[in-house]
Amino acid sequence: MNILIMAASLRRDSYNKKLAAVIQNILKTQNHTVTELNFADFLAPFYNADEQDSKGIPQVVSQFAQKMLSHDALILISPEYNYSTPGILKNLIDWISRMRPMPFAKYPIMLASASPAMAGGNRGLLQTLTTLQAACGAYVFPSMFSLSQADKAFTANNQLQDPALVETLSKVLVEFSKFTSKTFVHDKLS
Amino acid sequence: MNILIMAASLRRDSYNKKLAAVIQNILKTQNHTVTELNFADFLAPFYNADEQDSKGIPQVVSQFAQKMLSHDALILISPEYNYSTPGILKNLIDWISRMRPMPFAKYPIMLASASPAMAGGNRGLLQTLTTLQAACGAYVFPSMFSLSQADKAFTANNQLQDPALVETLSKVLVEFSKFTSKTFVHDKLS
Amino acid sequence: MNILIMAASLRRDSYNKKLAAVIQNILKTQNHTVTELNFADFLAPFYNADEQDSKGIPQVVSQFAQKMLSHDALILISPEYNYSTPGILKNLIDWISRMRPMPFAKYPIMLASASPAMAGGNRGLLQTLTTLQAACGAYVFPSMFSLSQADKAFTANNQLQDPALVETLSKVLVEFSKFTSKTFVHDKLS
Amino acid sequence: MNILIMAASLRRDSYNKKLAAVIQNILKTQNHTVTELNFADFLAPFYNADEQDSKGIPQVVSQFAQKMLSHDALILISPEYNYSTPGILKNLIDWISRMRPMPFAKYPIMLASASPAMAGGNRGLLQTLTTLQAACGAYVFPSMFSLSQADKAFTANNQLQDPALVETLSKVLVEFSKFTSKTFVHDKLS
Repeated sequence: MNILIMAASLRRDSYNKKLAAVIQNILKTQNHTVTELNFADFLAPFYNADEQDSKGIPQVVSQFAQKMLSHDALILISPEYNYSTPGILKNLIDWISRMRPMPFAKYPIMLASASPAMAGGNRGLLQTLTTLQAACGAYVFPSMFSLSQADKAFTANNQLQDPALVETLSKVLVEFSKFTSKTFVHDKLS
Repeated sequence: MNILIMAASLRRDSYNKKLAAVIQNILKTQNHTVTELNFADFLAPFYNADEQDSKGIPQVVSQFAQKMLSHDALILISPEYNYSTPGILKNLIDWISRMRPMPFAKYPIMLASASPAMAGGNRGLLQTLTTLQAACGAYVFPSMFSLSQADKAFTANNQLQDPALVETLSKVLVEFSKFTSKTFVHDKLS
Repeated sequence: MNILIMAASLRRDSYNKKLAAVIQNILKTQNHTVTELNFADFLAPFYNADEQDSKGIPQVVSQFAQKMLSHDALILISPEYNYSTPGILKNLIDWISRMRPMPFAKYPIMLASASPAMAGGNRGLLQTLTTLQAACGAYVFPSMFSLSQADKAFTANNQLQDPALVETLSKVLVEFSKFTSKTFVHDKLS
Repeated sequence: MNILIMAASLRRDSYNKKLAAVIQNILKTQNHTVTELNFADFLAPFYNADEQDSKGIPQVVSQFAQKMLSHDALILISPEYNYSTPGILKNLIDWISRMRPMPFAKYPIMLASASPAMAGGNRGLLQTLTTLQAACGAYVFPSMFSLSQADKAFTANNQLQDPALVETLSKVLVEFSKFTSKTFVHDKLS
């Protein structure tokens, strides 16, 4: 499959970017084609309904949506800010949600997070789940991968230290690709 | 398809039971077989890990799980209590979640709610979504049907007054049956 | 102050009960009077609006509410079940919320949780916060104490191993007692 | 009291701005001093931890925090975007949450929302509550005012049509000012 992947952080040494790289490598060994997007290339202006009326959807927003729709699925790796979705990521989602047809509708998405906290990014991912699935109609994959204590999780060359975690993550990705082929890919072919 | 349906209310004149009956009728016109469960028959004892250790899973809990697994999907119609899942329903879910293999895993569920409030039962359904999907691994259908002002929504013989609502609900149910055949039914056949 | 404390678990060796005992000891060194309730004594029947109409509020429910109102604040220590409030605890809250005047209104509550998971009981506490504060009007204290890896957190005689955690918890309890005296106790005196 | 008020919308004819104006008028009749902020003046750059490290907190962010701390309380009127906090507002909160001492800690905030939807902005406010209170330590007032069907709620000169709603809102504001004087104002004097 063709999988789109993006870490929703602007920080250069972001743990979420490192996790994105790990996921990308696993997906390649599972024979998927992966496109990684740079979050910094998709910074939409602040959502403003008046600007939408006068100027339409900003170009970076429709470009992101096109990227989604030219791939079979999206894996979104997002930090948790204040127990919820980062404002910047939410602003991009808010814009995309105004496009018609809704790009998220029936689109398979897997959520992951990396955080130095013991609690990982769970609370934030639950809120992103609510937004993407219940409000925007995406097929969010039930298993969300939350890497806790991310400051100690990576080796010097950015692999996950714990082989058990790699195995768990690999299995989740296999399941997500099955979920994607059953839902979105199936729809495109029928 | 074989669809299981249950209104998670004990009240005799429950709006959620009325909505369950409406959904059941629509499903039949869509050529599905429907089994309606009576919530009062599935009142599990209060969850207690010690009792689970000594006596195992209560019979009503495993019976509910068997009902689920002998059907292709579950439609759960639940009131909202205090912006969340009713305690009684949550207690049943808490028990089911202790069974292995987990009965909810990859199982398609649609959530609906009826409430006299303007806000409908949305907040409660969002919490039930989190529990069933993120914690228990169910494939919860993105579209959740929340009937607001339910005290004025039904005719004397328990039909929905508003034909637009009936049409919306019918379309959601068609989509849910497609979702189910792509996910769960597909798994059983493969 | 007079503080009510309860661990919302029925399990004999519950980590939440152990945390309740630790909190109780700290409160006593802070010169508070503490009453600990046994959750097993407050198991309300399954909420049923018809039974409320015919029989009124069950005795254990009004007894719990009376205990609350004869104390200055409640500390509720609750496990997380499936990323949310335990069904049994929610059922008790659902009943209490039907009493008028609403016992939770403006009543100071601190939430805590103990869990063997790395993530602690955070997600569950956030849902209990929504229910108690936004739906029921309680003054829930912002700082919630979530003990993660609770299976390794206690000494043989049920003290917290980590002195830093004891200090954090002690400070939170001091802050909670200040919060309580500013809100609830102040109301009673005026 | 000195109350700060802001509608978190950029739209010129925003229902949330109209609700902010109504609230402001009521507060003045209740003998409070009100400062209304224009959200467009407080658009922080996209949160980036590297920029925080190199350049510190942006000026508009510290200005907003100063405005908060030179007033006794904040009333935040926010639309709901995709069942959650608007991305732009969340981005401002994400920045403020990085300041030390944390400006939100123990600071009294009331949340309100206006929406053309029947469900109002309830789901979004619940998420903003979680962020501001549980993550950032604010004293969020339990009663949140959510105006549903806002497109029909205002008269030609921007008053609320329904006198019962005005009365409800007035009472909530009286309660909020009591809550504020018990918590924040009390702290400043002691």
